[in-house]
Amino acid sequence: MSKTHEAIETDQLMIRIAEISLEPEYIDEYLTILREEAEASVRLEPGVICIYPMYQKENPAEIRLLEIYADKEAYEDHLQTPHFKHYKTATLHMVKSLRLLDMQAIDPGTMDQIFVKLNKE
Amino acid sequence: MSKTHEAIETDQLMIRIAEISLEPEYIDEYLTILREEAEASVRLEPGVICIYPMYQKENPAEIRLLEIYADKEAYEDHLQTPHFKHYKTATLHMVKSLRLLDMQAIDPGTMDQIFVKLNKE
Repeated sequence: MSKTHEAIETDQLMIRIAEISLEPEYIDEYLTILREEAEASVRLEPGVICIYPMYQKENPAEIRLLEIYADKEAYEDHLQTPHFKHYKTATLHMVKSLRLLDMQAIDPGTMDQIFVKLNKE
Repeated sequence: MSKTHEAIETDQLMIRIAEISLEPEYIDEYLTILREEAEASVRLEPGVICIYPMYQKENPAEIRLLEIYADKEAYEDHLQTPHFKHYKTATLHMVKSLRLLDMQAIDPGTMDQIFVKLNKE
């Protein structure tokens, strides 16, 4: 069982940058599928803190995702969801390369400040 | 004058990934200075939505920052602050390479969801 319904402990966070290069002819189609997957993940999975997808302005075939999971278990659970499996299967032929970088936040506490700030506005 | 005291308009956001490679002997010293700079920026500058610094677990000399500014003006203001200028001067000799990638969020609205989610916990 995932611990994701309990309070999030920042030292357990699993933080990742995904670097994805697309076959250029599939950019629009890929973004539609990714947007749906990211939205469903954050909405349906308590352990998915953040999937923040971006593309490079100079080269929209270069996708970057900041992914933050409550812990490793939350990530393993995520891989088993229908929305992730659909995304993975549907986009396989669109992805030229995929690089997953495990990251450590330098100051995990900063995230709280960000949220406070956005809420104030 | 910056518009950063007004509501944040997501289509004006300036989003960037900074890719920084450090001279390995300076990692600890660099992280201390960066942590202070990121904290001061988010705390003191209304237009700095987020500076989220990370390093690669496999290679701590590889730094990545997700930076989100309210708009281009907020970013220009940031460059003129004492804390940014101190960071830039103090770390210049520690940085082997710096690459700044202008990014477009695929779904800027997601940030709000993240906030709601963390607030619930």
